[in-house]
Amino acid sequence: METAIQEAVTELKALLKEDQISENPTVLERHSHDESYHTPVPPDAVVFPGNTDEVSKIMQIADSHHVPVTPFGLGSSLEGHVVPVEHGISIDFSLMDKVLETKEKDFLVKVQPGVTRTQLNKELKKYGLFFPVDPGADATIGGMAATNASGTLSVRYGIMRENVRDMEVVLADGTVIHSGSLAAKSSSGYHLNGLFVGSEGTLGCFTELTLKVYGIPEQITAARASFSSVDEAVEAVTAVLQAGVPVARIEIVDEASMKQVNNYSELNYQEVPTLFMEFHGNEAGLQQDVDFTEEILGDFGCLDLQFETETKARNQLWEARHNLAYAYVHGHPGRKLMVTDVCLPITEMAGAIHHAREALENLGLPGGITGHVGDGNYHVLLMIDMDRKEEVEKAQELNSRIVEYALSRGGTCTGEHGVGIGKRKYQLKEHGDALKVMDKIKQALDPKGLLNPSKLSYKEEEAVQ
Amino acid sequence: METAIQEAVTELKALLKEDQISENPTVLERHSHDESYHTPVPPDAVVFPGNTDEVSKIMQIADSHHVPVTPFGLGSSLEGHVVPVEHGISIDFSLMDKVLETKEKDFLVKVQPGVTRTQLNKELKKYGLFFPVDPGADATIGGMAATNASGTLSVRYGIMRENVRDMEVVLADGTVIHSGSLAAKSSSGYHLNGLFVGSEGTLGCFTELTLKVYGIPEQITAARASFSSVDEAVEAVTAVLQAGVPVARIEIVDEASMKQVNNYSELNYQEVPTLFMEFHGNEAGLQQDVDFTEEILGDFGCLDLQFETETKARNQLWEARHNLAYAYVHGHPGRKLMVTDVCLPITEMAGAIHHAREALENLGLPGGITGHVGDGNYHVLLMIDMDRKEEVEKAQELNSRIVEYALSRGGTCTGEHGVGIGKRKYQLKEHGDALKVMDKIKQALDPKGLLNPSKLSYKEEEAVQ
Repeated sequence: METAIQEAVTELKALLKEDQISENPTVLERHSHDESYHTPVPPDAVVFPGNTDEVSKIMQIADSHHVPVTPFGLGSSLEGHVVPVEHGISIDFSLMDKVLETKEKDFLVKVQPGVTRTQLNKELKKYGLFFPVDPGADATIGGMAATNASGTLSVRYGIMRENVRDMEVVLADGTVIHSGSLAAKSSSGYHLNGLFVGSEGTLGCFTELTLKVYGIPEQITAARASFSSVDEAVEAVTAVLQAGVPVARIEIVDEASMKQVNNYSELNYQEVPTLFMEFHGNEAGLQQDVDFTEEILGDFGCLDLQFETETKARNQLWEARHNLAYAYVHGHPGRKLMVTDVCLPITEMAGAIHHAREALENLGLPGGITGHVGDGNYHVLLMIDMDRKEEVEKAQELNSRIVEYALSRGGTCTGEHGVGIGKRKYQLKEHGDALKVMDKIKQALDPKGLLNPSKLSYKEEEAVQ
Repeated sequence: METAIQEAVTELKALLKEDQISENPTVLERHSHDESYHTPVPPDAVVFPGNTDEVSKIMQIADSHHVPVTPFGLGSSLEGHVVPVEHGISIDFSLMDKVLETKEKDFLVKVQPGVTRTQLNKELKKYGLFFPVDPGADATIGGMAATNASGTLSVRYGIMRENVRDMEVVLADGTVIHSGSLAAKSSSGYHLNGLFVGSEGTLGCFTELTLKVYGIPEQITAARASFSSVDEAVEAVTAVLQAGVPVARIEIVDEASMKQVNNYSELNYQEVPTLFMEFHGNEAGLQQDVDFTEEILGDFGCLDLQFETETKARNQLWEARHNLAYAYVHGHPGRKLMVTDVCLPITEMAGAIHHAREALENLGLPGGITGHVGDGNYHVLLMIDMDRKEEVEKAQELNSRIVEYALSRGGTCTGEHGVGIGKRKYQLKEHGDALKVMDKIKQALDPKGLLNPSKLSYKEEEAVQ
């Protein structure tokens, strides 16, 4: 192995410019972890390709020397996806950060994988367009495709998988393919787009992505609704959705998390369970939606309802929600973030959140609950002291209880963060024999097992039964 | 081979009741073709399983004797999907035709594969719900999933792949898996749902499907707009979409097809290029959408615009559109239907339809043009006399020209009908090296090549370069 990586690095140095490859300890450390609690592992070297051809040649070199390859966007993942568990080469896409082409009349944009979400939206704004997938973090588009990210707006605009129309993908042996086309739909061949989105770097590297974009709505109204209990808030959401109101965002933030929001963003929101909502539409339709929602929320014990239509006030409201994870991290120096991520049918939400709150209390863990309640996806945010074994074990126990609850009710162990390292042990329980199909696909496309090894697929010895 | 199939049939007769297996020539003929021009081939036997366990055992028997298996819904496919090209066993799902469970508060319904679209919607109506994927034909849900069907409402509600949440799938060796969960989204493992939807019976048989359903909108308005040219009509559509109006359907029917509609449905619509539209929403919003659309259509030379809000009048309007293919078949006894099915970026639509019309005239073929213009998907309908070699060749030439045009502009050879037999020769040109990935997946999941053989994947010797 030692020799293999040294030989590969020598060939990579011949291929790339001096500043496109690094073995500097600081650079290796930066690529050893993401934003999660998972144990860091440094790669042997980091490469910074500038184009598809270089990525293809890097993959060929790695393939010929049997060296593991781990793609790296910005390291904002939450389940250890970018940790190069078996060392080898990390491919950092930060030099491939161009918005290549905006086809505004076709509602399409082509980007390189290193483009970030806010960078893309800044460019799209020139055309009156926006890209709606918004996981909170200012992640790269390549990373968002790798984990099948979603976030606050997905209840209305869909998840990453539904908004990627085509990708240029470099396979394990360096072959370059396209996974889709520019057509809005296709029944031609197997759905490779859907397969590669969410594949977490285990089937190939993305070098170009064509995304579906949307016109900025004529009118946007945001709202913040306070409740005396999480149950009431969740029941109100369920009623709004069942009434067919096309909400663009509908998020829950519990009491504990509202405290963090206030502290971090210097705000004075009431520290009670709160719904953050947004409505998009034409003026007349939106007003009818807002009025109807107000009526429903009232029926479910809403204590206070504030609307914001001005851009600045809306942005402040959403910044507070978006900064929640950072608020936790900021408020707990020296600790590491663990976030649960189950997703369930909407009728199971109230019970699931109730169960999670009970589990937190039983285990004596402090933690906040927040979630994309319109999709049935919620998170418990925990700040863990990794040096305290008992605390780590309690956090793992909490995660397990929450996952078990979700799986027993038709849900999934991860709604949007992905499997990475942290959810591998639940894969067998969630997928059963379908996991064998996934393993066969992995084996067929990456027979040497070099692409982001020890991720996504399950570890038999650790599997939860 | 003879012996293999005889042995398999003997085992199947021991497994199934007498009326669940047939070698009757009339039954074999019924399963030898779909609604298209492709050459019929009868299976050796047809089985009618009643449950998942029987399907699994049928697959095990077929696997052990190396006998091909072709799933059959109602035979309404348009590219020869159900033709058992290599003979063997056809599995007819007509006994598995139950709507198993409606979870109305979760907007989910679980069905068996033999349930038809209208049967499902009749059941859902009891709950104020509907399933929006509407390919025109009253196909089975299993068949619609197999071809990744879409149709008139997909511009608003998405295609089959986006509305299937979970499937029970029987694999080549009889293993039963689930491809998804009941959660609205998931980042857990590879996206098997997306892979199996559109796999045309080449990767497994579907035995249960959980679908996303929608509340029947508060208000529905239909409209019919006449234009003096197809170009003007398509430009009007593009403008409506670019203005961000959330149309639920927007269909084009050209002059020749309007004649067929009038003849078949005994109507007196003006025989000029016509847009059929539908708007769904709340009362206030919908009125604003309708007013805005009227304004835009006027700017693009709309000759006449008629709105219908009454259910009966709306249904008559859509029945006329839906019956179009039958109108052609009915109007040309003894001939066979060939339908082109390309899909392109919306800005390429006007050029593509113009090119298709020119190609029809150059080749001296009569044919109507219609399409789901909001998705960039249009069809040329041709009635061919299969006994006239020159006519068949001309029709093939037309199809080729239309596909070439679409592929050269970022489109796909099939927007919704699927590959089947008719689009295999375009697979290499459309997908390039991505086809090798598809072949590897097929090889991994069906190593003996028994599931609907000679479909979907390309024939090297026939491939269009």
